[in-house]
Amino acid sequence: MTISLDELQLAARNHGMPLELLREPITPRGLHYLLIHFDVPDVDAAAWRLELDGLVRTPLSLTLDELRACPARTVPVTLECAGNGRALMAEYSPSQPWLRDAIGTAEWTGTPLAPLLQEAGLEDAARELVFTGIDRGVQGGVEHDYERSLPVAEALRDEVLLAYEMNGEPLPPQHGYPLRVVVPGWYGMTHVKWLRRIAAIGDEFRGWQQAEAYKIDGAPVTRIVPRSLLAPPGIPDFMTRERFLHPGPCELVGRAWSGLAPIERVEVSTDGGSSWADATLDEPLGEFAWRGFRRTWQAEPGEHELACRATDAAGNTQPLDTVSNSGGYCNNAVQRVRVTVADD
Amino acid sequence: MTISLDELQLAARNHGMPLELLREPITPRGLHYLLIHFDVPDVDAAAWRLELDGLVRTPLSLTLDELRACPARTVPVTLECAGNGRALMAEYSPSQPWLRDAIGTAEWTGTPLAPLLQEAGLEDAARELVFTGIDRGVQGGVEHDYERSLPVAEALRDEVLLAYEMNGEPLPPQHGYPLRVVVPGWYGMTHVKWLRRIAAIGDEFRGWQQAEAYKIDGAPVTRIVPRSLLAPPGIPDFMTRERFLHPGPCELVGRAWSGLAPIERVEVSTDGGSSWADATLDEPLGEFAWRGFRRTWQAEPGEHELACRATDAAGNTQPLDTVSNSGGYCNNAVQRVRVTVADD
Repeated sequence: MTISLDELQLAARNHGMPLELLREPITPRGLHYLLIHFDVPDVDAAAWRLELDGLVRTPLSLTLDELRACPARTVPVTLECAGNGRALMAEYSPSQPWLRDAIGTAEWTGTPLAPLLQEAGLEDAARELVFTGIDRGVQGGVEHDYERSLPVAEALRDEVLLAYEMNGEPLPPQHGYPLRVVVPGWYGMTHVKWLRRIAAIGDEFRGWQQAEAYKIDGAPVTRIVPRSLLAPPGIPDFMTRERFLHPGPCELVGRAWSGLAPIERVEVSTDGGSSWADATLDEPLGEFAWRGFRRTWQAEPGEHELACRATDAAGNTQPLDTVSNSGGYCNNAVQRVRVTVADD
Repeated sequence: MTISLDELQLAARNHGMPLELLREPITPRGLHYLLIHFDVPDVDAAAWRLELDGLVRTPLSLTLDELRACPARTVPVTLECAGNGRALMAEYSPSQPWLRDAIGTAEWTGTPLAPLLQEAGLEDAARELVFTGIDRGVQGGVEHDYERSLPVAEALRDEVLLAYEMNGEPLPPQHGYPLRVVVPGWYGMTHVKWLRRIAAIGDEFRGWQQAEAYKIDGAPVTRIVPRSLLAPPGIPDFMTRERFLHPGPCELVGRAWSGLAPIERVEVSTDGGSSWADATLDEPLGEFAWRGFRRTWQAEPGEHELACRATDAAGNTQPLDTVSNSGGYCNNAVQRVRVTVADD
């Protein structure tokens, strides 16, 4: 594997969730994955306003206190970077070199977006809503604020939140303080951090992050495709992260999610995918959060390859092998965990 | 630059502090660098005890509440990984591929270690104290608990803390919950996380992390050598992290630290090291914390290379160029920041 200094710079700044943390339904602070395109901005929340304008009858300019005074909702949501799995592809354009751990689940607290859009009054010509962050930089040779859009119908969904708390505390600087949009079910690029403006527009948004990035063969990346991951059992080797454990019953635990439909089934293999057995699903944590699963394995001495595979209620399932695409998106191929069980 | 999948796995799990956060004297939660050799352990604090035994007259077994009832002290301490700068070396043994951002400063709260050692009563034969973490794994082919030792005289220093809070809150799981040792001035490997035992021994400790790792040509790595870093000005390019700014006065700010002596001088260059000028030092944050510095630069259109160089009161200064060593330790060569100033 050859990686550029540029890619390593990104890997050093950003980080995944160490997979042993899959034991926790809600990812503890500081362990949720993080992808920051430009810099973490230094925001003066007292001077900050959210502007809601464009094709609306009554533009709004809201302080953080005003947003906090609106009806609040708290929802556990699993986020995943659209580039998760990129570095496991045979070919891709250089970018953040994610393996499989660009994931996390937090309890997001905020106010639903739809009532604010209704208060502002979308004009009939409004087609999309553009979410603009405070963060600014250069990507693909183009200087721009980080901006992404949503079709009006998506933005009006009940579960879309303007979130000002993460796990019961104000958003940390790196997760978008003071406000980000949370679009449950969609990949992370949509959940614009450091939100400063929402503008209703009459055309298709053509900003760089929408028109140039986050596409597979020209089709936009939107909702999270199904994935499941095991918390690797036993203890690790520092460098290889291969696992070592003792023989006997071993409860394999993990979590599975899909932004397309609820998780319906998770299968586990302990022989490298030759055979599969159904895992038991935990009670759902929430409609847009990962679902725990578990299965007890009788670990016998020797080398084994563990794997898991999720299927959602719409029939989407994980592929066994990675399929490359030039942007390096949506690689939800089945995880493999190599373990060595001691003779004892 | 060629990097192995193993190294990338480490870079994805662990993370540096994004350098724009050098604007903050105390690193916000979740942004402090993190190096976890094995897994983040899942600790039941109610069942947890700190054992203090070995060559002592009265072994102690302390609960977290008992440690919290001891006299407390809060100290800002800058931590740095001994491998910071490793990936910039021409040659090194594969390990966590740090660039320059394996740093952070927190307010650590805990109880001084020395009074507890006095209460236990070190025997005359005691030569070193071995700090044992709960984390266990395989490194260099050897299965072991993470363990490091300190000579008795170092362990008895006033400023050595058993810390249970970071920035005013219980230690996060990834920083050693419920307890870690903080040894101000020393590189991060010494600040054993998830501490479960302190044992006084009569010989030199020969555990893997002490005898095999953290050595340069056989000499142990101990205290932090001087380093200074600039918060990169302007806005970044996503991939290259090169910076873009507008012409005019630009305040260059950064922080400098040394575990060997207080920072006495920081010089800044805006012409790639051809000429240097003294920066103004901020008031010290604490004896063992980084010191802010600043200098206004009249940015003129064109390409520039910024650099900074710290010198401590013992006369130690940063080298201009990287010198490799096989373990990849202590690379404190001067940082270079490429910036492009627009014509405006």
